[in-house]
Amino acid sequence: MYPAVREVHRAAWRNGVSKDGTRFVPEEVPIALTYSGGSQAVMMATPQDLEDFAIGFSLNEGLVERVADIENLEIIHLDEGIELRMWLAEPAASRVIARRRVLAGPTGCGLCGIESISEAVRPVPKVASGNRFSASQIMAAIAGMAERQKINIQTRAVHAAAFWAPRNGFEFVREDVGRHNAIDKLSGALAQAKRSTQAGFVLLTSRVSVEMVQKAATIGASVLVSMSAPTALAVRTAEEAGITLIAVAREDGFEVFANGHRIAAATPYHGIAV
Amino acid sequence: MYPAVREVHRAAWRNGVSKDGTRFVPEEVPIALTYSGGSQAVMMATPQDLEDFAIGFSLNEGLVERVADIENLEIIHLDEGIELRMWLAEPAASRVIARRRVLAGPTGCGLCGIESISEAVRPVPKVASGNRFSASQIMAAIAGMAERQKINIQTRAVHAAAFWAPRNGFEFVREDVGRHNAIDKLSGALAQAKRSTQAGFVLLTSRVSVEMVQKAATIGASVLVSMSAPTALAVRTAEEAGITLIAVAREDGFEVFANGHRIAAATPYHGIAV
Repeated sequence: MYPAVREVHRAAWRNGVSKDGTRFVPEEVPIALTYSGGSQAVMMATPQDLEDFAIGFSLNEGLVERVADIENLEIIHLDEGIELRMWLAEPAASRVIARRRVLAGPTGCGLCGIESISEAVRPVPKVASGNRFSASQIMAAIAGMAERQKINIQTRAVHAAAFWAPRNGFEFVREDVGRHNAIDKLSGALAQAKRSTQAGFVLLTSRVSVEMVQKAATIGASVLVSMSAPTALAVRTAEEAGITLIAVAREDGFEVFANGHRIAAATPYHGIAV
Repeated sequence: MYPAVREVHRAAWRNGVSKDGTRFVPEEVPIALTYSGGSQAVMMATPQDLEDFAIGFSLNEGLVERVADIENLEIIHLDEGIELRMWLAEPAASRVIARRRVLAGPTGCGLCGIESISEAVRPVPKVASGNRFSASQIMAAIAGMAERQKINIQTRAVHAAAFWAPRNGFEFVREDVGRHNAIDKLSGALAQAKRSTQAGFVLLTSRVSVEMVQKAATIGASVLVSMSAPTALAVRTAEEAGITLIAVAREDGFEVFANGHRIAAATPYHGIAV
């Protein structure tokens, strides 16, 4: 079993003088995701919430359409890492095996450049119209995030993805050394809980690259809030998916890059107070 | 042609009031790396220094052993991205095609979990003994980095990897939305210039995951300095590779996590001043 955090020795240099001490750093473990006997990917990840990770990765990468497509999940601790071994129901199992054959190509030559780019930037689904949220609700979530990042409090070096909803506040917070893994873990937690992503918004600590928007679209999140900046492609993809993209979210305000119609100055009527 | 930076419209919310304006955000482009007719990877990257990227990725991923193994490189601008199309000399070409076949497996089932983890955490090469550097040289490099990050000055959202040597200071600075891509670009620039990585050190703005140490080891960099924190696996891998790993490097000091013997309090004798 791997811990999420380790204390390591290090020498701190200040003013040309070295002093021995320790620091808490996040563990990072190679995690293989295998489907029906073959490996799909190895991700370097924080070894926590692995069931969420397996389910969220499978959904977000389009390997399964629903949690029930995963008939069996074993978490296998190996010497050098962890295997998340999944057996899929039909037709998902046959589809994954067929996809591996296509990726390899009939002559083992793989896809050409155009095909592999199309695979990487596949069209995003359109999200539903979704709830509206007020600026003060978004500010409340931003203000409450740091204290819920348990691993980050110790290490100052991991990302987080959370789901915040008006009635309950933070419903799920997942952390990982990799930002993609953090949102995959969150997706898995939401799917297992059968929670509608329309009821709240997804909050990220990390930069918003296009993959973060693709994953948000896949889980149907209509509002994505990040404390960091987006890329230009992430902004275009959020526009296309109909996602409200809020970024550079800080204690003193935030910026709306796409589909700002879901943001209200006053708290929309939910019958509840924030 | 894609620019590195785009100005996008956004609404800035402060104190519950929205104000329209613009922000500069980094562009992010799917870049397919193809070898002898097949696609190896699609990376989401900053569309700059693409020749460096193609060469550095190829070296760091072990697809080629030297720059000369790449007989031809074309940079092809497609509608949805960019293809870096490489044709390799023998025996590199046959090796890459054979590796693609192995990855796919004889029945299209891919590697098992243990095999794919071994592939991901392959043993790192041991670096040479290398130069020593003083705390003040390292501090000088840290202090000079920000003003050389041209894309980051505009966007505050991209990583950088640089090579600093006592005689010349910053010899190469490469930027990218992805931290792996930034060090790959730096590796390509160093390889094209035939610059010995023993003469200086690599400076990163980003967190040090194990892949960053693997890439540094592959290019023979004996000293790796990062402004952010390492993972526990990155520390262990730096110890194994013999790399001096300096991290959490800030204006007021830095921390040494592995192989601290290359750090001297006073400037080591090079016959030159910093």
